[in-house]
Amino acid sequence: MAGKKKREEACFEAGIKLGALFHQFIGIPVSMENVELVERVMESCMKLQPYVSFSKVRIDRKKLKKSMSEFGYTSLEGEMLYAEVVVRVDEEEVRAILRWDEEKKYPLMSLI
Amino acid sequence: MAGKKKREEACFEAGIKLGALFHQFIGIPVSMENVELVERVMESCMKLQPYVSFSKVRIDRKKLKKSMSEFGYTSLEGEMLYAEVVVRVDEEEVRAILRWDEEKKYPLMSLI
Amino acid sequence: MAGKKKREEACFEAGIKLGALFHQFIGIPVSMENVELVERVMESCMKLQPYVSFSKVRIDRKKLKKSMSEFGYTSLEGEMLYAEVVVRVDEEEVRAILRWDEEKKYPLMSLI
Amino acid sequence: MAGKKKREEACFEAGIKLGALFHQFIGIPVSMENVELVERVMESCMKLQPYVSFSKVRIDRKKLKKSMSEFGYTSLEGEMLYAEVVVRVDEEEVRAILRWDEEKKYPLMSLI
Repeated sequence: MAGKKKREEACFEAGIKLGALFHQFIGIPVSMENVELVERVMESCMKLQPYVSFSKVRIDRKKLKKSMSEFGYTSLEGEMLYAEVVVRVDEEEVRAILRWDEEKKYPLMSLI
Repeated sequence: MAGKKKREEACFEAGIKLGALFHQFIGIPVSMENVELVERVMESCMKLQPYVSFSKVRIDRKKLKKSMSEFGYTSLEGEMLYAEVVVRVDEEEVRAILRWDEEKKYPLMSLI
Repeated sequence: MAGKKKREEACFEAGIKLGALFHQFIGIPVSMENVELVERVMESCMKLQPYVSFSKVRIDRKKLKKSMSEFGYTSLEGEMLYAEVVVRVDEEEVRAILRWDEEKKYPLMSLI
Repeated sequence: MAGKKKREEACFEAGIKLGALFHQFIGIPVSMENVELVERVMESCMKLQPYVSFSKVRIDRKKLKKSMSEFGYTSLEGEMLYAEVVVRVDEEEVRAILRWDEEKKYPLMSLI
């Protein structure tokens, strides 16, 4: 019973982290120059939050180039973004990802 | 088993909604004039998202007044914000809230 | 001389408003259902800020529909957004707009 | 005449950069651990944008510590933020800053 509650909490916390990541960072100015720095800061912002034991963020360079404006940068879009987070509440660990679903045209977040 | 998975998904989805809400709207210019409109748009943004059956947002008028700048408005802060969301995945329904925890100095999100 | 300074300040203030609008609201969940409400709240957030005498926001319904996800809403993107602001500092009034420039692939902001 | 226009444009562009910075980054999770990284990414995001020749961001460590939650981090607030940007349009250069004005309780942006 307690384990079940802990697992539900871990799922809830994982959702918070991905929802937060997307809505905090979408729109950020990004180019080939600062893309790595942007990934690292996004990972650090997830890692700071309670219960997070692992975080990974990748911005798709091909899509980044494709969206590039005449000014040599663009605004971060859901289509470019991949993120992964592992949350641990006591013994219960859950992993969740955010990835663009081309068919649904949606930044799909899921427990895996 | 399937019910358990559905419940975990519902918890995950509830987390997404509250994490998204906070990080999308913190910083928005708000005053006594547009505070109701801001609450309604925040509720509508939660309601649009998958599995949400109910959403409620309240901005604390006292704290809003207390934070008021010389220019008659302020930026929305975590301290002022209360939110509630109900998520339903098939038969499984979960309710989660976001409220400022004065002791923890933190916009605490929890399953209730 | 003083008029020149006032004009420069008005230009500066107009820039603040459009930069703020874009980066606060990009990513907000939007659909045909709440698009008018979103436009109104965006206008109200500009109007609250110092020196603003007029604000207008329009979200392109065609582009909104085109970006629609399987879940019946999408995240607000620069491509969909048109905004106008009038700023007045004493006698000096400037008008600025934000509109998507298809050729530059950029949400161009300009004094007009 | 042309110079005057260029100067007004430079003022407008400087405003865009500070308005964008504030509203993109307010709410970002920040602690003593990632504060330098956050400053660097904020600077890089300003530097990418058109006409910017210099950018500087500082987050006040004392205020950061004072706002620290029980979880060892906080959300970036206007009170903690100092930023500087230099914008050059042809021969016309303007410098603008964002700093917290304690008396006005406001993140004041000004041409200097």
